[in-house]
Amino acid sequence: MTHKARKVVIITERGLVSRVAEVIERHGATGYTVVTAGGKGSRGIRAENRAKVVDALSNVKIEVIAGTPEMAEGIAEEVAERYFGDYSGITYMEDVEILRPHKFNG
Amino acid sequence: MTHKARKVVIITERGLVSRVAEVIERHGATGYTVVTAGGKGSRGIRAENRAKVVDALSNVKIEVIAGTPEMAEGIAEEVAERYFGDYSGITYMEDVEILRPHKFNG
Amino acid sequence: MTHKARKVVIITERGLVSRVAEVIERHGATGYTVVTAGGKGSRGIRAENRAKVVDALSNVKIEVIAGTPEMAEGIAEEVAERYFGDYSGITYMEDVEILRPHKFNG
Repeated sequence: MTHKARKVVIITERGLVSRVAEVIERHGATGYTVVTAGGKGSRGIRAENRAKVVDALSNVKIEVIAGTPEMAEGIAEEVAERYFGDYSGITYMEDVEILRPHKFNG
Repeated sequence: MTHKARKVVIITERGLVSRVAEVIERHGATGYTVVTAGGKGSRGIRAENRAKVVDALSNVKIEVIAGTPEMAEGIAEEVAERYFGDYSGITYMEDVEILRPHKFNG
Repeated sequence: MTHKARKVVIITERGLVSRVAEVIERHGATGYTVVTAGGKGSRGIRAENRAKVVDALSNVKIEVIAGTPEMAEGIAEEVAERYFGDYSGITYMEDVEILRPHKFNG
């Protein structure tokens, strides 16, 4: 027996972790996972940034299982609006199925 | 040409990796991926644990592509029932599409 | 307001990162994320390989948000055809929802 939930993924600069975590917790999520990441990203449409290689391990991938789609979208929107004008980052959401909904509802 | 499959994600304490791997293999999955992770988690409904910050890199995120939804749910259920009473952890499933189904069917 | 997109995940040997990145960029993706990974994998159906334990942290998990399903499948197919005959690896795709489509359309 599984239950639908929504995962928010935020990939951004390492220095933003605590600020992103604060947004996540304020929206009522009960936890999050952080993984160290490298890669290459674009910032908008500027060619010089598109070509920029992000140093290995200077980024983080933060994942949150949100109890509702509204919580997920609220987290994603707030992180993008607050930080992705000034910092590199992307955010996206995925449908997931969980076993124990009480763990994710604050 | 793609084929539907099911991904199981298990995020738990580092010390459980070999026991979780044993469950995964017993259910017939042909492989799994392990990534070192940090984060913050809740354990059920106890407030003192919900507030606990998990040390950086003391957790793991284990992912398995299961050949069938039944295999995926079997792995998730067994890991949760065996270990998540005594250890921190969450598990969830996602739909994925693969190119080569023979790789994931044991 | 969210928009559908497609994530490609490639899990393979560490030494292939730059070659996989070249494929990703040639297909027009604007970025990718790389995470160090360990695990255990099968290579096709040969029993001696299926039992092989991949050393901790000798693998990578590469993720790309593709602007279209065709771009996603093009990347997955090319990586699998070029490299997964000779190297360990799997690839799969997932549906995701993004906030800002211009970031992922090259």
